[in-house]
Amino acid sequence: MPYVNIKITDEVVTAEQKAALIKGATDLLVEVLGKNPATTVVVIDEVNTDNWGIGGEVVTKLRAK
Amino acid sequence: MPYVNIKITDEVVTAEQKAALIKGATDLLVEVLGKNPATTVVVIDEVNTDNWGIGGEVVTKLRAK
Amino acid sequence: MPYVNIKITDEVVTAEQKAALIKGATDLLVEVLGKNPATTVVVIDEVNTDNWGIGGEVVTKLRAK
Amino acid sequence: MPYVNIKITDEVVTAEQKAALIKGATDLLVEVLGKNPATTVVVIDEVNTDNWGIGGEVVTKLRAK
Amino acid sequence: MPYVNIKITDEVVTAEQKAALIKGATDLLVEVLGKNPATTVVVIDEVNTDNWGIGGEVVTKLRAK
Amino acid sequence: MPYVNIKITDEVVTAEQKAALIKGATDLLVEVLGKNPATTVVVIDEVNTDNWGIGGEVVTKLRAK
Repeated sequence: MPYVNIKITDEVVTAEQKAALIKGATDLLVEVLGKNPATTVVVIDEVNTDNWGIGGEVVTKLRAK
Repeated sequence: MPYVNIKITDEVVTAEQKAALIKGATDLLVEVLGKNPATTVVVIDEVNTDNWGIGGEVVTKLRAK
Repeated sequence: MPYVNIKITDEVVTAEQKAALIKGATDLLVEVLGKNPATTVVVIDEVNTDNWGIGGEVVTKLRAK
Repeated sequence: MPYVNIKITDEVVTAEQKAALIKGATDLLVEVLGKNPATTVVVIDEVNTDNWGIGGEVVTKLRAK
Repeated sequence: MPYVNIKITDEVVTAEQKAALIKGATDLLVEVLGKNPATTVVVIDEVNTDNWGIGGEVVTKLRAK
Repeated sequence: MPYVNIKITDEVVTAEQKAALIKGATDLLVEVLGKNPATTVVVIDEVNTDNWGIGGEVVTKLRAK
C-alpha cells in the first residue's frame, strides 16, 4: 500500500529507466518493510529544468555552466 | 481551506470530468467536515502511463496486456 | 489506481469523518472516471493550524479572531 | 535541506519569474530558519487551469467570467 | 538533485528500516539515472492507519479483519 | 490561488518562524506573479530527522557527526 513519488528533472529519461525506477522502488518497499507489491504505487514526476532550483539557482543555468 | 490533490493517469480525461472531480471533491469536504468551499482548492495531476507503476510494473505495459 | 491526498487542519476530525472522506473520494473516482476502487488510494494529512497559512496569516491566529 | 514546492496555474510564467520564485523561496528559508541554501530545493509545478479548482469551480471558467 | 517521497502507514517502522529506505532510494537514483547522491533527498511520511484508505476502506478496519 | 508546501526537519521551529515563512512565501507569490494573497495557501510539514535523508544518510546521523 505504500506510495512513492520520485521527482526528477526531465533530461532524457527513457521508458526503460522509468521502468527500472518503478521496479526498484517497489522492490525496496517489499524488502525493507515486507509491503505488498500489488498495491505499491510509484509515480514519477519529470520537472522542466526551468522549474527546479537548488542553492537559489535555476537548474537550467547550473547545467549551462 | 482544505487542499485536495488528485493524481490520475492521463488517459483521455475530459474537461467535463475534471470539473466533476473538482465539484465532487469540494462538496465532499463541505458535507463531511463543514469546510468553506470558497477556499477549498483541488488540483488534478495527470500522469503519463510510462510514469505510473503498480505492482512493480509500468501502467503502459499493464494496459497493453 | 488513482491517488488522492486530502490536506486539512487538525481540528477534531473523527475516525468516522475520515472514513467518510476516504469512501467519498474513492466513490468520486469510480463514478466520474470509472476507476477501479480496489487500487484507489486516499491519504489524509492533518496539519497543525500553526503550520497552515492563508492570506499570509497563520490559521491559528485567524481562528482566534 | 528544505524542500519547497510551489504550485501555480500555467498562465504565462516567464523563466525570469521562475528564477525569482526559486531565489526568493531559498532566501526565505535561509533568513527565517538559517537553512543551508546549497541543499535547499525548490520545485515549481505549473498546472493547467482546467486542472485547478477553487470554490468548486474550474479556474478556466472563473477566468472567463 | 532528485526528491523522493515515500508514504507508508505508521505501523512500527524502525530507525534502521528508515535508514535502509533512504539508502536504497538514493542508490536507485544513482544506479538508474546516474544522479548525484549528495543532493538526492528522501523524505518518509508515516501516516496513521485511520488516515489511509484503499478500496474505499480505512486501513485500520482492513487490518482488523 | 497558489499552493506552497514547505518541508523542513522538525528541529525547534517556533510559531513566529512559521508565521514568517507563511508571510514570506505569500508575499513572494504576490510580488513575483501578482497572485491574490487571499487565496494563497502555505502548508509547512515538519519531518522527523529520522525520516529525512540526504546523500543516502539519515539526517539524525548527519546531525550527530
